[in-house]
Amino acid sequence: MTSPNTLTEFHAALAAATGPDTAAFDAAQERNGQLTKPPGALGRLEDLALWYASWRGDARPQITAPQVLVFAGNHGVAARGVSAFPPEVTVQMVANFAHGGAAINQLSTLAGAKMSVHPIDLDTPTADFTQGPAMSEEEAMVAINTGWNALDPASDLLVVGEMGIGNTTSAAAIAHALFGGAPEDWTGRGTGVDDAGVALKSKVVADGLCANPQAASDPLQALRCLGGREIAAMAGAIAHARILHIPAILDGFICSAAAATLAQAVPGALDHAIAGHGSAEQAHGNMLKHLNKTPLLNLDLRLGEGSGAALAIQILRGAIACHSGMATFAEAGVAGG
Amino acid sequence: MTSPNTLTEFHAALAAATGPDTAAFDAAQERNGQLTKPPGALGRLEDLALWYASWRGDARPQITAPQVLVFAGNHGVAARGVSAFPPEVTVQMVANFAHGGAAINQLSTLAGAKMSVHPIDLDTPTADFTQGPAMSEEEAMVAINTGWNALDPASDLLVVGEMGIGNTTSAAAIAHALFGGAPEDWTGRGTGVDDAGVALKSKVVADGLCANPQAASDPLQALRCLGGREIAAMAGAIAHARILHIPAILDGFICSAAAATLAQAVPGALDHAIAGHGSAEQAHGNMLKHLNKTPLLNLDLRLGEGSGAALAIQILRGAIACHSGMATFAEAGVAGG
Repeated sequence: MTSPNTLTEFHAALAAATGPDTAAFDAAQERNGQLTKPPGALGRLEDLALWYASWRGDARPQITAPQVLVFAGNHGVAARGVSAFPPEVTVQMVANFAHGGAAINQLSTLAGAKMSVHPIDLDTPTADFTQGPAMSEEEAMVAINTGWNALDPASDLLVVGEMGIGNTTSAAAIAHALFGGAPEDWTGRGTGVDDAGVALKSKVVADGLCANPQAASDPLQALRCLGGREIAAMAGAIAHARILHIPAILDGFICSAAAATLAQAVPGALDHAIAGHGSAEQAHGNMLKHLNKTPLLNLDLRLGEGSGAALAIQILRGAIACHSGMATFAEAGVAGG
Repeated sequence: MTSPNTLTEFHAALAAATGPDTAAFDAAQERNGQLTKPPGALGRLEDLALWYASWRGDARPQITAPQVLVFAGNHGVAARGVSAFPPEVTVQMVANFAHGGAAINQLSTLAGAKMSVHPIDLDTPTADFTQGPAMSEEEAMVAINTGWNALDPASDLLVVGEMGIGNTTSAAAIAHALFGGAPEDWTGRGTGVDDAGVALKSKVVADGLCANPQAASDPLQALRCLGGREIAAMAGAIAHARILHIPAILDGFICSAAAATLAQAVPGALDHAIAGHGSAEQAHGNMLKHLNKTPLLNLDLRLGEGSGAALAIQILRGAIACHSGMATFAEAGVAGG
């Protein structure tokens, strides 16, 4: 499928995506019932295996080509002082990703995943969304398609991560636009701001909604008007994965905000995705409830980069290893329960 | 160290074990503060890395030789009908482990761990503990030393697992002896018994305590009188790992009961151990509270075999990969917060 040229085309492509393979699900479920363990004894690992099998259309799947995509962008709103770190850190961390020094590098290697980093126009921060839209539609489509095109169609699992000083504020604004509540319901400490910093973030989120009223009624306008380039790119990659039936693991607060724009725009748009972990960023739990996702891990991570999702690849690998590798009662000569 | 000949020698060896390397802990903590991430952003992964570093005496450790030991035993108490599966399944599952068909085989391979299975006198079930001690001291020491000697001193991480039809009842009796409460506080569905089965298990646990009053006052007597051979072997392996400073990951309810006998016998005996997962077996959470351990994973597993702990190896590997592999702010040229 060619990449979309407009938000309308993007929405249409996502809306036309097909669902999982129910025959593969049924066959996987039958296999699961024959494996040498008491029924249900592998708990959530069993659910994960059936879900993955259904999206891959294979009752006995393998994970051989996971992909980790890290997107980076700079935010005009960072000039408001919403982060504990200066904006220069975005480009510095991109160099760190490129040289293999960041957490996501270590976790991608451990998971056997191909990782790449995609900085998007770092010299041109998005516009300050308290003054109007962060991006024009053209700019948003460049970012969305950076994600869309970064997805390797041959991959069999996707993790997307991000780097962008100021982007928890952008994610909070998106969440507020999508799910309502008060601005302070969606703001938190990010990389480490104090109470005054959190209050400032809430003010900036409120101002962002005032300056972009269309964001409250159209999820993809929320992505364009309140998002950053890296957030739009994550949405593009996750959407393309949905269309290609490549299962995805969501990372923390910012990744989930990107994903939420898709789910709110098109029901079922995240059926191919699971929540890798629950972030220590306070509003993430609330966001996951809105998305009806239960995180696989709860380890108080709040780094971003795709780190929690990359770690969760290992859990999914464990589920698939058991499902596809175990002997059946008949094969092993074990008496059933 | 030579293996102990009596429970008294076993207790003395455990009591003489030394603690972690505080200099390595301090050096690891200093390194952690310099890594390219906001302070604390890796959450529990940071705690794990410091804990592991302190036990290995290495501020920048690697995990290169994890070992998974699976012990199997048969229980006289199984004749009381406390399991959904017949006792023959123990030996059948041992064959399945040997042929690579069980869940623990898949998860050990995924974790890069050396796995071995150790059936212990399967043709001679322990005595029915409702009638008196499950094992003589000599039998208990054979089992403990099976675990003790199965530990490879060159390994750098230990997971122990078990197979033994009827052993959730044995573990419940141990927990009741160690921690008090009511018998029904410690019994659950095991591999899948119904309400009547759970009630029967509670009755058997109560009868076990009546028949073995010494179990309530001496944790190692609880291990001998109420345990199974595989439970005693797990205790032996975990104790030996404590002495050799090999960190351990505890599995579910049965493994934790084995470990709990050590912690109740010698304070600090489980300082080298973390809880790999919280089991769906209902009493496991209560047991972990008594042990002051918070599980890494909560995925509703209730299989045993060491499966949850083996899966948790991946989380610890992630923690160590980040800690030992990431660049510092200075190395990466990234501005600090």
